[in-house]
Amino acid sequence: MPRPGFENEQQVLDYMRKIAIGQSGFSTFLGLEPVRCWEGHAEIEMAVKPEMTQHHGFAHGAIVGMMADNACAWAASSAVGDVVTGSYTINLLAPARGDVLRSKGTVVKAGRRQVVVRAEVWSEAAETDPVLVAIAQATIVPTGIPSAPMS
Amino acid sequence: MPRPGFENEQQVLDYMRKIAIGQSGFSTFLGLEPVRCWEGHAEIEMAVKPEMTQHHGFAHGAIVGMMADNACAWAASSAVGDVVTGSYTINLLAPARGDVLRSKGTVVKAGRRQVVVRAEVWSEAAETDPVLVAIAQATIVPTGIPSAPMS
Amino acid sequence: MPRPGFENEQQVLDYMRKIAIGQSGFSTFLGLEPVRCWEGHAEIEMAVKPEMTQHHGFAHGAIVGMMADNACAWAASSAVGDVVTGSYTINLLAPARGDVLRSKGTVVKAGRRQVVVRAEVWSEAAETDPVLVAIAQATIVPTGIPSAPMS
Amino acid sequence: MPRPGFENEQQVLDYMRKIAIGQSGFSTFLGLEPVRCWEGHAEIEMAVKPEMTQHHGFAHGAIVGMMADNACAWAASSAVGDVVTGSYTINLLAPARGDVLRSKGTVVKAGRRQVVVRAEVWSEAAETDPVLVAIAQATIVPTGIPSAPMS
Repeated sequence: MPRPGFENEQQVLDYMRKIAIGQSGFSTFLGLEPVRCWEGHAEIEMAVKPEMTQHHGFAHGAIVGMMADNACAWAASSAVGDVVTGSYTINLLAPARGDVLRSKGTVVKAGRRQVVVRAEVWSEAAETDPVLVAIAQATIVPTGIPSAPMS
Repeated sequence: MPRPGFENEQQVLDYMRKIAIGQSGFSTFLGLEPVRCWEGHAEIEMAVKPEMTQHHGFAHGAIVGMMADNACAWAASSAVGDVVTGSYTINLLAPARGDVLRSKGTVVKAGRRQVVVRAEVWSEAAETDPVLVAIAQATIVPTGIPSAPMS
Repeated sequence: MPRPGFENEQQVLDYMRKIAIGQSGFSTFLGLEPVRCWEGHAEIEMAVKPEMTQHHGFAHGAIVGMMADNACAWAASSAVGDVVTGSYTINLLAPARGDVLRSKGTVVKAGRRQVVVRAEVWSEAAETDPVLVAIAQATIVPTGIPSAPMS
Repeated sequence: MPRPGFENEQQVLDYMRKIAIGQSGFSTFLGLEPVRCWEGHAEIEMAVKPEMTQHHGFAHGAIVGMMADNACAWAASSAVGDVVTGSYTINLLAPARGDVLRSKGTVVKAGRRQVVVRAEVWSEAAETDPVLVAIAQATIVPTGIPSAPMS
């Protein structure tokens, strides 16, 4: 299920950088880096900056949630085109102490009215193993707009 | 169920501004303003800035999610003290087109191991009625630390 | 938002008893009694029987979940017609020790592709106050079939 | 993480049949068959009976939800002992048309206060491939009771 309107993954990643990230004030602030977005899978990487922390110095829960939600939305869009997030459930598992966050989304079922996606978010640091900091389960809604950017 | 360790709501709001917001890089970036935090209820207000938008110019879904999560965590902390978010489910209902976001959290049940909270997020603009943009249901976990700041 | 294809609530309740309950082996086994189903609100009542209990003698969590899900689906159907449940999140708050379960669902937003609903489930007994045993938040999906029974 | 108080999986399965299923009116009615329950994994099998169907003749959503919830609770109990379900989110993906339901739960993180679990539910029939009919993400709460039966 490659993304409608795109010939290959590189086109999708270029599009994401230019539109979904480049035209979003928040995503530009965050410095999101799309690593993968093709055939129901998405991966996003982001360096944690001081402006993203909660009061213990870890990445803020909303930042972790954003990584999960984005991975779900992009994974869904890779299968069905333009989407909006309908809902998601996130379980926060551990503090995000690392300096990089990485999230991966996988489409479980791409229906006409709903795309159900699971995601994981890892916190990474130079000299330790990645730590699974959150898992999510999302309902993503296709807009039916074939080539418009996803939110 | 007033917050353990605080005598009145003003003390709680001062504490939130100083610690939970003032020592959090992300909350300071956001400019969160606590309006209420007492006896199981919390209300937060925030002006939407360009750095918080998605590519259509609305407040980003992660920002809306943060408003919901924070209202849940603060409502829970007003009843049981220091907490961390365990999980939440958010349904996004409408684009957040306004220039102010407001969220309200209400404790449904404060247990020893879990506090269950509901929240609503509204988008507000000068000349229109507030729009309900999201609802959430959260499981907030007491840390057992009596007077430490909430995350 | 009265249910499409029905003139009044009594018609809806009759239809529910005959089709959604009467033609469902499980709902007949349960003995569900629809109390309300109109304009985005639904209420269901059910007597707890020994075949519905878990090993401590309380109503089984799946029975409580069914009450929540049904209230959500029926509330949604009262606004938009035939529906299926897309997803729901349920928080179980207390053991359902009573001999009657009652659930109420309220539509928060009825969209074209999704209806978002909240529900509460109470456990009732003769000489005590009702106990709130669960809350839920659901995404219900309209099937677009105008007059077919809901699942 | 083998279940506290049990020496091997067979002891756990025997215990489940005798207590969690045998003393539960609902689980006995359902005819639940535990297939696996050890070290963070659980699998349950159940034959679908006419009394478990909705009005289209498929397994009722509440039955599917029960299979998901039970797999989560049992997977959690295999790691931490006695538990109760705190909350779960379920996405229903397809009608359960088969005559057997099978659910599998896997612990993602076993914490002291919460165990986070994912589950899948399949519908099986003699001459077709299993169909994934639901996925769930649950927060299961350890009761701290070492050897008491789980709910």
